[in-house]
Amino acid sequence: MSGAQSLTLDPEAGEDCAEMIARLGRAARAAARRLARVDAETKNRALRAAAGEIRARSARILEANAEDLARARAEGGTDAFLDRLTLDEKGIEATARGLEEVAGLADPVGRVLAEWTRPNGLRISRVSVPLGVIGIIYESRPNVTADAGGLCLKAGNAAILRCGSESFLSSRAILAGLQAGLGAAGLPEDAVQLVPTTDRAAVGAMLKAGAFIDVIVPRGGKSLIERISRESAIPLLKHLEGICHTYVDGAADLDMARRVVLNAKMRRTGICGATETLLVDRRAAKTHLPLLVRDLLDAGCEVRGDAATRAVDPRVVPASEADWGTEYLDAIIAVKVVDGVEAAIAHILAHGSEHTDAILTEDAAAAEAFLDGVDSAIAIHNASTQFADGGEFGMGAEIGIATGRLHARGPVGVEQLTIYKYVVRGSGQTRP
Amino acid sequence: MSGAQSLTLDPEAGEDCAEMIARLGRAARAAARRLARVDAETKNRALRAAAGEIRARSARILEANAEDLARARAEGGTDAFLDRLTLDEKGIEATARGLEEVAGLADPVGRVLAEWTRPNGLRISRVSVPLGVIGIIYESRPNVTADAGGLCLKAGNAAILRCGSESFLSSRAILAGLQAGLGAAGLPEDAVQLVPTTDRAAVGAMLKAGAFIDVIVPRGGKSLIERISRESAIPLLKHLEGICHTYVDGAADLDMARRVVLNAKMRRTGICGATETLLVDRRAAKTHLPLLVRDLLDAGCEVRGDAATRAVDPRVVPASEADWGTEYLDAIIAVKVVDGVEAAIAHILAHGSEHTDAILTEDAAAAEAFLDGVDSAIAIHNASTQFADGGEFGMGAEIGIATGRLHARGPVGVEQLTIYKYVVRGSGQTRP
Repeated sequence: MSGAQSLTLDPEAGEDCAEMIARLGRAARAAARRLARVDAETKNRALRAAAGEIRARSARILEANAEDLARARAEGGTDAFLDRLTLDEKGIEATARGLEEVAGLADPVGRVLAEWTRPNGLRISRVSVPLGVIGIIYESRPNVTADAGGLCLKAGNAAILRCGSESFLSSRAILAGLQAGLGAAGLPEDAVQLVPTTDRAAVGAMLKAGAFIDVIVPRGGKSLIERISRESAIPLLKHLEGICHTYVDGAADLDMARRVVLNAKMRRTGICGATETLLVDRRAAKTHLPLLVRDLLDAGCEVRGDAATRAVDPRVVPASEADWGTEYLDAIIAVKVVDGVEAAIAHILAHGSEHTDAILTEDAAAAEAFLDGVDSAIAIHNASTQFADGGEFGMGAEIGIATGRLHARGPVGVEQLTIYKYVVRGSGQTRP
Repeated sequence: MSGAQSLTLDPEAGEDCAEMIARLGRAARAAARRLARVDAETKNRALRAAAGEIRARSARILEANAEDLARARAEGGTDAFLDRLTLDEKGIEATARGLEEVAGLADPVGRVLAEWTRPNGLRISRVSVPLGVIGIIYESRPNVTADAGGLCLKAGNAAILRCGSESFLSSRAILAGLQAGLGAAGLPEDAVQLVPTTDRAAVGAMLKAGAFIDVIVPRGGKSLIERISRESAIPLLKHLEGICHTYVDGAADLDMARRVVLNAKMRRTGICGATETLLVDRRAAKTHLPLLVRDLLDAGCEVRGDAATRAVDPRVVPASEADWGTEYLDAIIAVKVVDGVEAAIAHILAHGSEHTDAILTEDAAAAEAFLDGVDSAIAIHNASTQFADGGEFGMGAEIGIATGRLHARGPVGVEQLTIYKYVVRGSGQTRP
């Protein structure tokens, strides 16, 4: 192991990071093959047992978390950072309940997605199967250990988790509960593993381990995602950024627009579905814009506007070109007046991140033009962009919101952690 | 442009490969946005017009092909290579008819894949949309230009095609027909573009052009695919190799097994769905194995066997460990005796390429164990592995067989060239 500052637990003698990942990878592959053939009830039993184990271990988990927090504090972690890292009884209970909720979801494996019979009598079906071994690289929140591990397990996948170094001991304590649950259900504990070192070289080794890991899911800030995108030899299911727009059309109901815009920006400013840019139809510049801007300012939001927006309120500061492409994740909004729905679509295509974009209008034709014209994972008519969330979609928990274009877009829940195979049943057919 | 031996047509002054790809990429992006909103009938009109244009240009296409062939011959191309490169009237007619068949397929865009309503009244639908801009990098067959371009267009995608240098003039002549068809339907000709140089640096530039290209589809030999996998910063839909197995169970019908095994290996040995390894249940070693081996040998197939197989016929040569992981694409087969269906599954998991694997048996339980246990894109019971083909699946034309695990497995037809977005319709909902 290299890395002077890194923590490593249970190392094998003389093993470097590549060898460590290969060891975990072989165990994960074997576990994945076992899981792929396991029935739904056994997986659900493991998830429920894991929930019980995590509850039973809450004192030990809080102890480990206190150690993590002490180290992070000593290293000068910010309050916001320490807050994300902190676990309490309530958080542990929520984590346990999350696993029970995942157990209650429909089994995503073995669904017949399509079936048909060919003229030669071959019966073809497309059946959902697990993805295989999923590598998850995440930053500090320790509860991701249980959330992500549980989702992977439900979908029949093995998981190799690489947590942020600051949550290493907390994550490890939570993992012990997950693995005890797996064991209680007779499943291999290697189905969910945690990389046993905080050495950064382990991330590089994971990204090269295509022989053992089928998909990498990175969860974290933009710089982490960019590093992983650059280095990975393994396909990614990634969430890059949410530069989300709300467009208020000339035909928008004013009261609805005021309620929805305020919610879309200010309900929680730090989530990826928060609106970052407000576009307002020039036809509504006199009627809607002043009130929308005043509401936001009064709620404590900084408003950065184009000239037309600055004209309605002296508190609006000028927006620069960079503002149209910024994910603030904060109480800041960029506001621009545009010439109708097609101009709004053009702005979103040019500056958006294909995450979540909404139109507010009573004009059905404008709504359809927008829903069709934006190339967003989630296109919304008359509702808040903050609904961009697997739970709000009714999909249960999610491992993230995909912003790529292959495999999955939007919330990545248990269904999106599967793929399919074709099963072909014949009676001796040969190909002519 | 670098590359002393390379051909470049219509270069822009002083442009290097990265600039050229960026120029094509910007045009492709604009065309893709247009195509994403075009109705099915317009796309189909373009495909039919392209078929007509290709027929009308057949003399010009054959002329260009003769130039390509002369150059390839001068450079010492093998007979097999020249054969793959050669076009004739019949091949051009088949290419044109292929485009008409694609026009006749159901439109893959705008399908409602799922829809549901949330307790808060939000109506959510998952709707298929194009992938965006697809880069296709292929080797010599010039007809891929029309096949791949047509499939991309049908699915609403723009395509940037990079053909093998040997088929450059033929591909360019076919492309002109495609583009004329696009123009006739009022669609942008940039919807399908051909990289206008044979400079190899253009491939590297494509693999870095993630800002303009959403997905790369490589079509060609293993070394091409491996190079592209190594270098690409863009997600791939790739076909690596088909190490396909046929397992003859102890409960297999002997006559069916003889017919199907011979077809699976020998119908065409050069396609990816050809069986490369025959596994025979030890229970059938006396009854089935001798006849299966004799049939293959008599059909001119080289048989490389384990000790048990060599014992049944002196013409069988010894198989080495490497044979179990080799895609011969030739009249050669590796044969091994295994202890029942679970041993067959274990062999396939260890040595296969997750492409296509078949079991021949009259035992329904053994069949289900196999279909469930192999992790193949296509798992077959009682039929030939040579059915691994989009056309045989009834999907129409295919752009290849995917051997990765994300997005698509098995034949990649027009449906697999789409992804989805969520459309959410509300009535003013805000998130609590």
